Formats: sequence, C-alpha cells, structure tokens
Amino acid sequence: MMDKTRRAVILLSGGLDSATVLAIARSSGFACHALSFDYGQRHSAELDAAARVAARQGAVEHRVFKLDLAMFGGSALTDSRIAVPEQASTGIPVTYVPARNTIMLSIALAWAEVLESRDIFIGVNAVDYSGYPDCRPEYIASFETMANLATKAGVEGKQLHVHTPLMQLGKAQIIRLGTELGVDYNATVSCYQADAAGRACGVCDSCRLRRQGFIEAGVADATRYVASPE
Amino acid sequence: MMDKTRRAVILLSGGLDSATVLAIARSSGFACHALSFDYGQRHSAELDAAARVAARQGAVEHRVFKLDLAMFGGSALTDSRIAVPEQASTGIPVTYVPARNTIMLSIALAWAEVLESRDIFIGVNAVDYSGYPDCRPEYIASFETMANLATKAGVEGKQLHVHTPLMQLGKAQIIRLGTELGVDYNATVSCYQADAAGRACGVCDSCRLRRQGFIEAGVADATRYVASPE
Repeated sequence: MMDKTRRAVILLSGGLDSATVLAIARSSGFACHALSFDYGQRHSAELDAAARVAARQGAVEHRVFKLDLAMFGGSALTDSRIAVPEQASTGIPVTYVPARNTIMLSIALAWAEVLESRDIFIGVNAVDYSGYPDCRPEYIASFETMANLATKAGVEGKQLHVHTPLMQLGKAQIIRLGTELGVDYNATVSCYQADAAGRACGVCDSCRLRRQGFIEAGVADATRYVASPE
Repeated sequence: MMDKTRRAVILLSGGLDSATVLAIARSSGFACHALSFDYGQRHSAELDAAARVAARQGAVEHRVFKLDLAMFGGSALTDSRIAVPEQASTGIPVTYVPARNTIMLSIALAWAEVLESRDIFIGVNAVDYSGYPDCRPEYIASFETMANLATKAGVEGKQLHVHTPLMQLGKAQIIRLGTELGVDYNATVSCYQADAAGRACGVCDSCRLRRQGFIEAGVADATRYVASPE
C-alpha cells in the first residue's frame, strides 16, 4: 500500500482566519484542497484573495464552488437591500447568512468523500462571532455526527473530523499564530464590503475586529483602506 | 396577528416519490414552496418534470437551485465515466451522489429560514433505498438536531422539523397513497437516464422499482419508455 499524504479539505474565504487555518493544516502535514464559495457575496474581492492565499500557503489545489445564496436573500452580505452595519450589533447580526456554514460544510463533505479525505478544516470562531449560531462548538459537533451518518465512508467506519483550530482564539492570538506559521496577511481581505481592488471600508464589524487584532498582537498591519480610518 | 398559512419547503425532484410528498404536504394544509436542484444530473428531464408536478400539485412557487456537484465527480448520476447499472446492486450503489441529501437539505434549510418556515419535506425512503446512508431515519434525526443548532430560528426555540412521510412505505403503498391524493404520475420521471423527452430507459434500478410498484399497487402505469421493456 502506498504511503499517501493525508488529504484535507480547507474552507478558504480569503479572510484572515481561513488563511491561518490553511497554514495550520499545512503545518500538520495535510495535503490541502482549498474550497471557496462564490455565493453572491457583495465583496467578491474575497475570492481574489482566496486564490492568492491558496497559492502562497501551498494548497495542492483551489476550487471555487458557485452557490446562488442571494436567490433567497435574508442577509446583509447577499441582499443589497439590507445595509452592512457600521457598529457592533447585539444578538444575531444581519450579516449572518442563513445556514451558510451548514451549506459550505455539506459541500466540503461531498468533496472530501470523493477525495477519500476524512478531514475538513473551517475557521469558525466562538470568541468574535458569538452571535452566529453556526460558529459554536456544539453546532460543529452535531455536524460531525450527522456527517458520519450521511456518508458511505462514515457508514464504513472511517470517521470524519471537522477541525476548528481557531474556535477558542481571540483575533490577536490568531494573528500571532499565523505570523509564526508564515502567513502573509497582506494577501487576505476581511472587509464585508471591500472594493474591487480589495481595499477595506475600515468601519464594518469585520474591519474593526481585524484592526484591533493587529494592534493587540503587536504585528504590523498593512491592510489597505478605501479611506484612512479615523 | 394575521392567520398565516404555515409554509413548508418541499424537495421536489420530479420523480414519483417527491410528487407524492408534495401532495401529502398540500393535503396537510401547508403552503408549499417547491425546491429542485440542477446538480449536473444526466437526466435533466427530471427538472421539466419537477416544474410540471409543482404546477399540477398546487405549489405556491417552484425554484431551481443550480449546484455543480459534477465538479467533484464520484457518482454514476453526475459522472459520465461511471455507467448507470442495469441490475440491482448490493451495498452502496454507484448512483449514490456524495452528501447529496445533506447538501439539498442544507439549502432547503437556508430557504426555510428566509421564509420563516420550520417545515421541510423530503421523499427519502428506507425501504427501496436501504443502500443510501442518507436515506435512513437516524440520518434525518441527526440532520434535524444539527439544523436546530445551526440557525437563528432554532436557537430562538422555533424547532425545525424534517418530514419524511414516505420513510417506511414500499413503492406500491406510495403509489396508492398518491393516487388517492390525486397525484398525476404521468407528469413524473423516475428514470436515472431518461431522454430529453422524458422517456424512461426501463432497465435501471429506478425504472424497475417504479414498474413493479404500479403492478403491485394495481394502478394503471402510463410511463413512456424509449423501447418497450421486456
């Protein structure tokens, strides 16, 4: 039997978190198959960023799966009639996309099965995204249980594992970890409404978390903004 | 407060089973939002059938969600290099599409959340499709658990229910039930490799199950075949 490198499917958005996740999976020795989604998000600069990150962080391949979530509406990230907020919200934010992580993990699951991979990595985080139900550990655990009942491999006893290495880390810790692993954060885009050139708005939730993270981590921040923040 | 009819999302393939499910949901008083998938299946005649069935069985609306599962390959239904078998298989069949029901239910979940519906109907069946892991009751139960942890509505205590009214029925029972509810089975296509006109091959697993079902149910079968079977 060939000694085959273990394959993993990495959900790669092009943001800071998933770039770090890819670096972690690589450093753990996985052959990384990166998966991004074109889901009608306003910020398509994310997808350009994902391609750059996949190349720089050594993914074996990078695929973009087209998913017309905007067809249903219901989120500020896909529905242009809902404004992206400029301040921290309480409860479940309007930037929450219905069932997004479930859909993305399900498609990752399909690809993993075809690749004979039993490892999926996702950059969910319960610290900064506590308002998103599908970013919690109990959700991920239940997805794993379901996935192992859903698939041929699961039924045959090859357990699937959904890795969430960022789950309990704050933004500054993520940035420090990624920096140690050689992540080039200049390639990433976090902003919910970045322009076509990948420049960030500087005012949305995601921008504020990112900027604060670099400051706390004591890491130089080269994020490009549309207008200089503050 | 308005007395609003309860909405349900119905997974509608255009086949015999899901047409029956739609009739059951309608007869239970649900306003039915039918959802089909263009997932690179060989038999696109299914989608024409789904549109006919949605119209004839009184769905409020019918949407087709495009999903490029063929991108990953791995199934006889989406990968033209894998032949559709002409006899009953043992174990998990090659017509199994990796994670298909999980992906479809996840997208139905997103739409349900936007519609403020807490009811999804799917025509899975553990009798005739015992080889498909994602057609078993324990799989559906675990999907429900996961879905209620994944979504805003679930977190707010509005439990989602995945209805599987055909789970324990044989094909003849399904046909009898649908016939009582007025389903026009001539509008449906079951064949895994129907031609563009919707004519069935008569030899695949799905064709054989369907023909046998009509015989056992004692219901006239007007299925059109490419060549007369036997």
